Amino acid sequence: MKLFRKYLPILTWGAEYNRQTMVNDLIVACIVTVMLIPQSLAYAMLAGLPPQVGLYASMAPLLMYAIFGTSRTLAVGPVAVASLMTAAAAGTIASQGAPEYLGAAIAMAMVSGLLLVGMGMLRLGFLANFLSHPVISGFITASGLQIAMGQVAPLIGIKGHGESFFDVVQSMLPHLGDVNPATAAVGITSLVFLFWVRSGLKPLLQKIGMGERSAGMLAKLGPIVAIGLTTVSVWSFGLADQGVKVVGTVPKGLPTLAMPSFEMDLWLKILVPALLISIVGYVESISVALTLAAKRRQRIDPDQELIALGMSNVGSAVSGGFPVTGGFSRSIVNFDAGAETPAAGAFTAIGIAIATLFLTPLLYFLPNATLAATIIVAVLSLVDLGAVKHTWRYSKADGAAMAATILLTLIEGVELGLITGVGLSIFLHLYKTSKPHVAVVGQLPGTMNFRNTLRHGVVTDPAILSLRIDASLYFPNARFIEEMVNDAVAANSKIRHVILECPAVNTIDSSGLESLEAINQRLKEGDVNLHLAEVKGPVMDRLLGTHFLEELTGEVHLTQYDAVARINPELAISTMEKKRVVKG
Amino acid sequence: MKLFRKYLPILTWGAEYNRQTMVNDLIVACIVTVMLIPQSLAYAMLAGLPPQVGLYASMAPLLMYAIFGTSRTLAVGPVAVASLMTAAAAGTIASQGAPEYLGAAIAMAMVSGLLLVGMGMLRLGFLANFLSHPVISGFITASGLQIAMGQVAPLIGIKGHGESFFDVVQSMLPHLGDVNPATAAVGITSLVFLFWVRSGLKPLLQKIGMGERSAGMLAKLGPIVAIGLTTVSVWSFGLADQGVKVVGTVPKGLPTLAMPSFEMDLWLKILVPALLISIVGYVESISVALTLAAKRRQRIDPDQELIALGMSNVGSAVSGGFPVTGGFSRSIVNFDAGAETPAAGAFTAIGIAIATLFLTPLLYFLPNATLAATIIVAVLSLVDLGAVKHTWRYSKADGAAMAATILLTLIEGVELGLITGVGLSIFLHLYKTSKPHVAVVGQLPGTMNFRNTLRHGVVTDPAILSLRIDASLYFPNARFIEEMVNDAVAANSKIRHVILECPAVNTIDSSGLESLEAINQRLKEGDVNLHLAEVKGPVMDRLLGTHFLEELTGEVHLTQYDAVARINPELAISTMEKKRVVKG
Repeated sequence: MKLFRKYLPILTWGAEYNRQTMVNDLIVACIVTVMLIPQSLAYAMLAGLPPQVGLYASMAPLLMYAIFGTSRTLAVGPVAVASLMTAAAAGTIASQGAPEYLGAAIAMAMVSGLLLVGMGMLRLGFLANFLSHPVISGFITASGLQIAMGQVAPLIGIKGHGESFFDVVQSMLPHLGDVNPATAAVGITSLVFLFWVRSGLKPLLQKIGMGERSAGMLAKLGPIVAIGLTTVSVWSFGLADQGVKVVGTVPKGLPTLAMPSFEMDLWLKILVPALLISIVGYVESISVALTLAAKRRQRIDPDQELIALGMSNVGSAVSGGFPVTGGFSRSIVNFDAGAETPAAGAFTAIGIAIATLFLTPLLYFLPNATLAATIIVAVLSLVDLGAVKHTWRYSKADGAAMAATILLTLIEGVELGLITGVGLSIFLHLYKTSKPHVAVVGQLPGTMNFRNTLRHGVVTDPAILSLRIDASLYFPNARFIEEMVNDAVAANSKIRHVILECPAVNTIDSSGLESLEAINQRLKEGDVNLHLAEVKGPVMDRLLGTHFLEELTGEVHLTQYDAVARINPELAISTMEKKRVVKG
Repeated sequence: MKLFRKYLPILTWGAEYNRQTMVNDLIVACIVTVMLIPQSLAYAMLAGLPPQVGLYASMAPLLMYAIFGTSRTLAVGPVAVASLMTAAAAGTIASQGAPEYLGAAIAMAMVSGLLLVGMGMLRLGFLANFLSHPVISGFITASGLQIAMGQVAPLIGIKGHGESFFDVVQSMLPHLGDVNPATAAVGITSLVFLFWVRSGLKPLLQKIGMGERSAGMLAKLGPIVAIGLTTVSVWSFGLADQGVKVVGTVPKGLPTLAMPSFEMDLWLKILVPALLISIVGYVESISVALTLAAKRRQRIDPDQELIALGMSNVGSAVSGGFPVTGGFSRSIVNFDAGAETPAAGAFTAIGIAIATLFLTPLLYFLPNATLAATIIVAVLSLVDLGAVKHTWRYSKADGAAMAATILLTLIEGVELGLITGVGLSIFLHLYKTSKPHVAVVGQLPGTMNFRNTLRHGVVTDPAILSLRIDASLYFPNARFIEEMVNDAVAANSKIRHVILECPAVNTIDSSGLESLEAINQRLKEGDVNLHLAEVKGPVMDRLLGTHFLEELTGEVHLTQYDAVARINPELAISTMEKKRVVKG
C-alpha cells in the first residue's frame, strides 16, 4: 500500500479531495484551457507538426501527470525548447509533412517517456545534475534566439527554414524580397500587440484600479485576443486569398489511442535526441515544480517526477502527440489561477478535449503569422545574453561553458550545442577537481591556529612541511597530491616531517588511500615522516580498518597545533605566546 | 633558454655530466642490456610481432627518453600490458604475420606518441587521473591472467589464441590432446626454474653470504640463464626437429628509419586503442618514475613526462618498433644497478644495437616455450585478485568498479574492460558527488560547538534548521541541495530560519550560486530566512561581488554559534552554560 502511494501520488491527494476543491479546480481548468489552446497550436507549428497534434499532446499527458506527479500545480504539455528539439531530430528522419516525420515525433515521445520512467525506477534523477545551470541557461538562450529567428519567415510570409540559427538566417536571405504584405501586416501587428500586452497592459490595468493578480491573469489572455481578432480579420477581409497562410482544416475529434510502431532502426536513431529532450525537459520541469512547491511548502519527489514526466510522454505518444514537459508559463497560469490539486490539470485535459471536439472549425482562418508572433514573444523572454557576462565574471569556467553552448547551438544546432555544453562542463569539473587547492600553512603568532603562509605572517619550522588540503582525496586528484608532495619535498632537503591537515577532506576513496600509502612509502625512503591532522570522524572510521595507519611513519593528530607541538614543542609554544605580528 | 631547459631536461643533467658518472652509467648499461634482450624478444612475441621488432623498440625510445625525460632512472621499452593491448588492436586490422599487422602496430606507436606529446603540450596529464587505482589495478590483474593464459599454448606446443581470457581458454580446449612432449618439457622446466629463481634463489644466495642487492641482481639474470640453457639444449639435442618451435632467423642489423605510412583510415581505426595504450602506459610510467624519484628526492614533471613518453613512442615508430612505456621491472633493474642519469639508458640502447648487429644468430635455436615461460612468470606477479576483496571492504563503489573491470576484461578483452572501468568509475564518482553528506546539526551543551543531531545529544530550536554541508556547492550537487532544503522545510512547518554551515564548502560555482539564490527566493516565499555561517575566505570573496548577498533574507555569520545566538540568544547562551550530557 505504501508502495502504491509512493508511485501513485493521486492516492494521497485523491483521498482528501472534496467538493469545494473540485469546484475551485474546475474554475481553474476553464481559464487554463483557454490559454493552452493557442500555445498548443503554436508549439505544434514550431515542431513542424499539424496543429491537432499540439492539442493531442495537451490531453493525455495532463491526465497521466495527475495520476503520477508529485507537484500539485505543475502543468505538462508542449513547450518551446522541446518542440524545437523534436523538429531538429524528426528533420533528420524525414521532411516536414511526411507521415514518417509525424511518426518520428510520436516515437520520440515514446522513447523519451520510457527513458524517463526507466531513469525514475533506477533513481537516476541525478543524471540531470550534469546539465549545469550555465549550460542549460546558455542552451535556452540560444534555442530562444533560434526559435524566434525561425518564426520570422512565417511572420512575414517568406520562405526560410534551417537546423540552426545561422542556417535559418542563410535560408531566409534570398527570399527577403518576397515578403507578403498582408501576412506581414497581420504578423507584425500581432507582434506589436503582444509585446504591448506583456509590458504595457498589466501596469495600465493596475492603474485603472485592477488588482495585481487579476491584471496579470488578464494580460496573459493577450494571445487569445490576438488570435481572435486576426482570425476574424482574415475571414472578413478574405486575406487568405491574398497569400496569408492559415491553419486550415483541423481534424475534429479525439485522437485514436494506438501504440507507436516499434521500429528498432528508428528508435536507435532517435535515442540520443530523445535522451536529450528527456533531460532538458526534466530539468525545466523539476525546477518549475520546486519553485511552485516552495511557495506552499509542498514536497516534490525528484525520482517520482521522472516517472510522472515519463508516463506523460508515454501518454502523449499513445494518443498521437509529441514530447511534452512541465512548462514554466503554463504552470504559472495554473498556479496563479489557484489550482489546488492535479485534478485541475485533468479537468483542463477534458476542456481541451471538448475544444477539439467542437471548436476546431473556428480555427480555420487562424493565420500562421499570429501563431508565429505568439511564439516569438514567448521565447524572447527566455533569451538572456547578459547572463554570459555575469556568469563569466563569477567563474571563467562556467562562463566558457555557457558561451560554448550558445555558440555551438547557434551555429550547429540544438543537439551538438547541448552535448558540447554538457561534455565541456563535466570536463571542466573533472579538470578543476583534479587540481585542488592546497595551502602551505604556518602557525599564526599568538594563537594555536594555522594559516596559509602566502596570506599571513606565520611561523614555520623548515624541517616541517604543513599542507592543508582543501578537497577530498579521491581518484581525480590522488596523483596530483602525490606529485605535489614529491615536488615540495624534493625542493627542500631540510624537510623531515610532512603534515597533511585534513579538515576539508570529506572522503578518501581507494585511490586516495593508495596515494597516501605511496606518499608514506616514498617519504619513508627519503627519510621523511608523514603525519595527518584534523581528520574528520567518518574518514578516520574508515582509515582505522586499513594497513595504512600501521605503516604510517608519523602519527594522526587531533589538531594541526598538536602535530607541530609534538614535533617541535619549543617553537609551537613560543609562537603561541608571541604577540601577533601583521605581515607587510 | 629556460624554455629549452623545460622541454629538454638533458640540458640540465647533461651540463653536470662528468667522466665518473659516465663510467658508472656504462657499467649499468652492460647489465641492463643483458636483461633487456630476453624481455624485448618475449614482449614482441606477446604482441604477435617478429622478435627483432622487440629489439627495435628497445633502442630509439631509450635515446628519446634520455633527451626528453625528467626521471633519471626510468627505462622505457616494450611492456607486458601494452604489448597485449597492441596485439588486441592490431588483431582487428589484420591477422598475425601479415605486413598490415606489423604496420598497424607501428602506426599505433606513432599515434600513441603523437597523442602523448599533444597531451603534454596542452598539459592534459590530469586525464590520466580518471584511471582510478582500482580500475588500473583490476585491469592489470585481468590482463596478467589473460597474458599468462595466452602463453600456455606456446609453452606446451599446442594451438590457442584469442581476444580475451575466455576466448583463449575456449580455443585451447580442442587442442589439449596435441601437446608436444619436447616443447612441454622445455617450457615447463623453464617455468619451474624461473619460479624457483624468483622465490628460492635470492634467499639461497644471501644464505651463502652474498649481499642483498647483488643477490637480487643475480636472481634477475634467471631469464638469461634459462634462455641460454634451453637454446643450447635445443641445438645440441636437435629438438627443433621434434616440433619445438624456435625463434629462427632474426634479421641482423639496425632498423631503417622511416615515417610510418599515414593512412587516415588506419589511424582513425586505431585512435581509441592508441589512446588507451597511451593512458595506461603513462599511468604505469609516471607511477614508476615517482616511486624511483622519491628514493633520491628527485623531481618529476608530469606534463614533461607525457612529452618524453610520446617522443619515445614516436622514436619507436620511426625505427620500426611498437608501443613502449616506462616499465616497472626494467626500471627497477636500471635503478638497482646504480644508474645515475638517463645516459645509462642511452648506453643501453647502444648495447642493444650492438647485440642486434652481432648476436642475433645466437638466438636461432631459442625456443618460444622459454619465452612463454619468462612472460608467464613476469605477468603472474602483476596478478592480485585479493585486491578486489580488500578494495571492496574499504569502498563498495571502488570494489564494484574493480570487479567490473576485471570481469569485462576477462570476458570481452582489454579495450572494453578498460573503457567500462573508466566509465564506471567516473559515473560512480559523479553519482557520489551528486549526493553529498549533509548533517542536521545542533549545539553541544556546554560548548559553542555544533554537531550532527544523529550522533550527539545536542540542543536544537524547532524554528531553526541548521545544516552542515560536507561538500562544495557545484553543479553535480546543486539541485540535490535545493531539493533537500525544500524537503526539510516542507516537512516541518515550525521552521523560520535555515542556516547553512559551510566550513567544508571549498568552492561555489555558478550552479551552486544559482541554487543558493533559488533556495533563498523559495524560502522567502514560504516566509523562512536563509543564513550562512563559517563561509571560507576565498568563497566569501567571490560571493561579495554577487547579488545573492543583497537578496539574502538572513545574514552571513562568522560561526554557527553566532548565527544561532543572533536568532535565539537565550537558547544559545543557556545551552552553552549547561553541563554536557552524553546521549543514550
